[in-house]
Amino acid sequence: MSFFRPNRYPGKLIAIEGIDGAGKSTQLRLLAHWLRSLDASVVEFEWRGFPVDEPFTPTSLALQHCDSFMRCLDRVKPALKNGSIVCADEYALAGMTRDLVRGMSRRWAQNLYAQAFKPAVTIYLRLPVEIAMRRLKPISPLMAGMDLGLSLIPEESFRLFQGRLASEYEAMAREHNFQIIDATAAIRDQQLQIREIVKRIIPTQRKQARAAAAASIH
Amino acid sequence: MSFFRPNRYPGKLIAIEGIDGAGKSTQLRLLAHWLRSLDASVVEFEWRGFPVDEPFTPTSLALQHCDSFMRCLDRVKPALKNGSIVCADEYALAGMTRDLVRGMSRRWAQNLYAQAFKPAVTIYLRLPVEIAMRRLKPISPLMAGMDLGLSLIPEESFRLFQGRLASEYEAMAREHNFQIIDATAAIRDQQLQIREIVKRIIPTQRKQARAAAAASIH
Repeated sequence: MSFFRPNRYPGKLIAIEGIDGAGKSTQLRLLAHWLRSLDASVVEFEWRGFPVDEPFTPTSLALQHCDSFMRCLDRVKPALKNGSIVCADEYALAGMTRDLVRGMSRRWAQNLYAQAFKPAVTIYLRLPVEIAMRRLKPISPLMAGMDLGLSLIPEESFRLFQGRLASEYEAMAREHNFQIIDATAAIRDQQLQIREIVKRIIPTQRKQARAAAAASIH
Repeated sequence: MSFFRPNRYPGKLIAIEGIDGAGKSTQLRLLAHWLRSLDASVVEFEWRGFPVDEPFTPTSLALQHCDSFMRCLDRVKPALKNGSIVCADEYALAGMTRDLVRGMSRRWAQNLYAQAFKPAVTIYLRLPVEIAMRRLKPISPLMAGMDLGLSLIPEESFRLFQGRLASEYEAMAREHNFQIIDATAAIRDQQLQIREIVKRIIPTQRKQARAAAAASIH
């Protein structure tokens, strides 16, 4: 079940989700490296670092994030058409969870992202908020969701904000068929699990992938 | 019937809709002048002139328009709270019709604007596209919807684009209970009709309004 649009292109979309500090970028970098070693064409979905007009309301932030998201999606369409693997360090659900946590209605936020292509797989890096916080210090205002006014203390705000994001992700896990990875495990172990998951969605390269699975992780 | 949010504030929202060239600004200026002569507090909903990042896709344009719309709505909330009359030269349906004409789905566009307050009244200035075009010459690219690629000739593009907007408005007339004004009539006659319509939604000032109805139009 998913409200996303089916991806009718030959290319595959791989989404990695998780709270800040879960290790998404690290795992994605390793995954892309491995996929490229298998001669796969890999393209990154570069959604991070969007500009936000200040001061913003939750609605305005939601609309601007979605605009930025849809522009990224437009940019990777040619890659999907030519059969590439598009790796997204946060995809539509990341935008949605943030909108929900900022008080937007579920129906509204789902509709906003309804034009997003359904990913071939969504890998969810599950990490307790306390561990994420230790990894990320010092905490940036955006990661702490300081605009929500949950607390004036960044650490406390981070705990509450990222905790809510985590709850939203957990609630979505079944609907979007999350492949859950324990993000407290060693980076190498997580990566091996991720590669096993990804191998299933690149069937034409399965044999090649299996052969390389034993290869060292760079 | 309307998918908008009810306006629970004491203030009233008056929306004037119509294709470009229908005379919305003229009628709204006269209406505001008259309302102020009745000691009403009148605030304008200033949606026009939003910046658009180039190059845009229909989705991006829709999201940016809606962001601009919601910011305007935030700015007039205090006025609605204190009982003012907010006059909108184009309101949510103007954004929606443009989205629909650019190919966005009705469900998506409706949801996008679902947070807009339902206006107390929507006045629709109905004007044939041919007459609008004569009034507006020279035609600007945005008014002609040149981004849609309907025609390379601005006049032809305007005819097609504004014709589609008009069709969308006509289709919405019943659902949103449009008060339809014949925009080919004399400016003064249209204004008198509009004032009669507006008088119904400002009941506390009805008597005063009735007394002033015979007064000259400035």
